[in-house]
Amino acid sequence: MKKKTTQQRILQHALELASVRGIEGIRLGPLAAQAHLSKSGLFAHFRSREDLQIQLLDTAADVFHQEVIQPAAHTPQGLPRLRALVGLWLGWAPRSGLPGGCPFVAAAADLDDREGPVREQLVLFQKRWFTTFQQFVEQAVTLGHLRADLDVVQFTWEVFGMYLMHHTWSRLLRDPEADQHAHTAFEALVAAAQPTEP
Amino acid sequence: MKKKTTQQRILQHALELASVRGIEGIRLGPLAAQAHLSKSGLFAHFRSREDLQIQLLDTAADVFHQEVIQPAAHTPQGLPRLRALVGLWLGWAPRSGLPGGCPFVAAAADLDDREGPVREQLVLFQKRWFTTFQQFVEQAVTLGHLRADLDVVQFTWEVFGMYLMHHTWSRLLRDPEADQHAHTAFEALVAAAQPTEP
Repeated sequence: MKKKTTQQRILQHALELASVRGIEGIRLGPLAAQAHLSKSGLFAHFRSREDLQIQLLDTAADVFHQEVIQPAAHTPQGLPRLRALVGLWLGWAPRSGLPGGCPFVAAAADLDDREGPVREQLVLFQKRWFTTFQQFVEQAVTLGHLRADLDVVQFTWEVFGMYLMHHTWSRLLRDPEADQHAHTAFEALVAAAQPTEP
Repeated sequence: MKKKTTQQRILQHALELASVRGIEGIRLGPLAAQAHLSKSGLFAHFRSREDLQIQLLDTAADVFHQEVIQPAAHTPQGLPRLRALVGLWLGWAPRSGLPGGCPFVAAAADLDDREGPVREQLVLFQKRWFTTFQQFVEQAVTLGHLRADLDVVQFTWEVFGMYLMHHTWSRLLRDPEADQHAHTAFEALVAAAQPTEP
């Protein structure tokens, strides 16, 4: 395993902070202190706070890819892979050592009223993940696991709603049945998307 | 119409701020300045920042009741009222003059990693609204508009997911089809909950 660079270590710590405090809760002073750097030392690694926030989202996207998308590739294509993906997606952030939950959900609340490159990067990632998930749904359709006339965008939209509800209800309400509700919701969507008997 | 007290005016302005910046983004200095008060003048109306945040959530709950729950009471009981409620719920915050979207969603992201009375107040409101919505679903079951063996908690859970997705997708992604997706998702839940023919 490669030794992490100072920049990677700073980003990892910033990501843990952002998971709890949100991306707007990142303060450069404490972050520099934690890395045993001065503020100007921190700026040797990042051009600006905005640059750090963008790299932080990139880091989160890398972790997401490793923890959610990559492992699902080991399951059979179609519906089994879709199910694996949902199982890996739910709760991925705490399992990846991000104690405050999904950094993308936290960032969405912070950035939905702002303009600029950080917001644009977040929107890019959200759209990309939506498209990726949609492609997995399309694959399940192609393989005949889901019906041919399924509205794959609407299906994906409803799965994403299930994820957001799971995130809020498990974190804010600490509902021990959030996992159960989420899987029930997903399986109901799958059942409604079954191919009809010929 | 009664003249608003200074306290009510401060809360109204704080609510608009919290809609954009989140409940943790409330700064007492700017809030006092806007009300032409000193910081200590502000504390004549609120015991602490926490007290202000709790009263702010109470104010948001009052607005929500006036804009969402009360108007739905004018529609026939059962499924028509449930549909009215969903229509009033989606986008209620911008329609109520809260430019940053639903203050409860913003507060959930801020408070899910914190402890204390502000979080507890938010959890109380979320649970209360969940129970209220669930009771409207139960009414639709009682009237035979939805099937008798419907899992009303699960149904409510899935409707809440639809709301969260609508909030994120309309605000962060500015998706012009968010309304359409949300209504399609709700009608699919209703269709799956129809009483079977005898």
